[in-house]
Amino acid sequence: MYSPSINNLIAALKKLPSVGEKTAERFVFHWLKSGKKEVAELMLSLKELIEKVKSCEVCWDFSETSPCAICSDTRRDQTTICVVAEPQDLMVIEQTGIFKGVYHVLRELVDIGDEESLQRMKAKELFEKVKKIEAREIILALNPDLPGETTMLYLERKLKEENPRLKVTRLARGLPLGADLRYADEITLQSAIKYRTVK
Amino acid sequence: MYSPSINNLIAALKKLPSVGEKTAERFVFHWLKSGKKEVAELMLSLKELIEKVKSCEVCWDFSETSPCAICSDTRRDQTTICVVAEPQDLMVIEQTGIFKGVYHVLRELVDIGDEESLQRMKAKELFEKVKKIEAREIILALNPDLPGETTMLYLERKLKEENPRLKVTRLARGLPLGADLRYADEITLQSAIKYRTVK
Repeated sequence: MYSPSINNLIAALKKLPSVGEKTAERFVFHWLKSGKKEVAELMLSLKELIEKVKSCEVCWDFSETSPCAICSDTRRDQTTICVVAEPQDLMVIEQTGIFKGVYHVLRELVDIGDEESLQRMKAKELFEKVKKIEAREIILALNPDLPGETTMLYLERKLKEENPRLKVTRLARGLPLGADLRYADEITLQSAIKYRTVK
Repeated sequence: MYSPSINNLIAALKKLPSVGEKTAERFVFHWLKSGKKEVAELMLSLKELIEKVKSCEVCWDFSETSPCAICSDTRRDQTTICVVAEPQDLMVIEQTGIFKGVYHVLRELVDIGDEESLQRMKAKELFEKVKKIEAREIILALNPDLPGETTMLYLERKLKEENPRLKVTRLARGLPLGADLRYADEITLQSAIKYRTVK
């Protein structure tokens, strides 16, 4: 019902995660009202994105160089690899400032309903790298939810199978800052008691 | 912390309504993973949007022609004008198929905290058109919320002042389909009783 140019753009925007018809419409009318300058800036940024950003072929993060700044930083411990699901997860861990190793971005997790997810996941690349560089520790930093747990179980088994002396760890489970004991779930509370720390 | 091209695009996307840092990040990484084809299609759609879509200078809807298809349709009653806030509202009314008049899109409503909202609103254009074409009826089809009610009060007063014989109406207030009497608010229920209809 809208004009063809508007409908085409709505269709293109609906491919974005959690963007439906109504949200796509709002984006289009926002641009129509904001004027040509804002759209031109956006187009320029999109152009730069596809021209400049590539995959780091060591850690599979997105970067303007390959290897990326982290992978080519010799002051970092290249034998301790933190495995994350997405580039955004890498960023939040990096922002804590506490981790001095390197990363591996899987980009995809095991999805039991989708057989090809295992092929798309950058796991093969991880297994090869672990052997090649003789890694000492792999930290599995995936979300403690169903796809995350499934993937961590799969990676743990494969990594230990191929490299019996490799240390494979997970992020600690416990109470988050500001939590209320009375609202914590049973599994979290059990972990918090079992892995209590000495102050 | 991300590469400059990624940060620039995140900044450009954050200008969209209800898009914050996290959502913008998700859009960017969606495009990085989807590949160049999807981004190229989006850029083409954006280009077409700014090149082809303009404002209809009669009703201020966005259209590829000016006057738009509705304003230039001689079978429609050009003296009954339905005033809406945004192009999306025009579309939902048009989809009911019941309205055979024409529209006027305000694009902006009166915002008491923002003095310039009155200048940006296409109200001046409405007042001029009403006089010029000797309109018979103006239907104020804005949302029954604070900005909508404020704007309708303002338009009603001005329109009646300048055109004492003009009919100015509002959409009926009553119970929506599937409503539960016990959950209806008092004002809606009062209107539903007062304007009850004969079947």
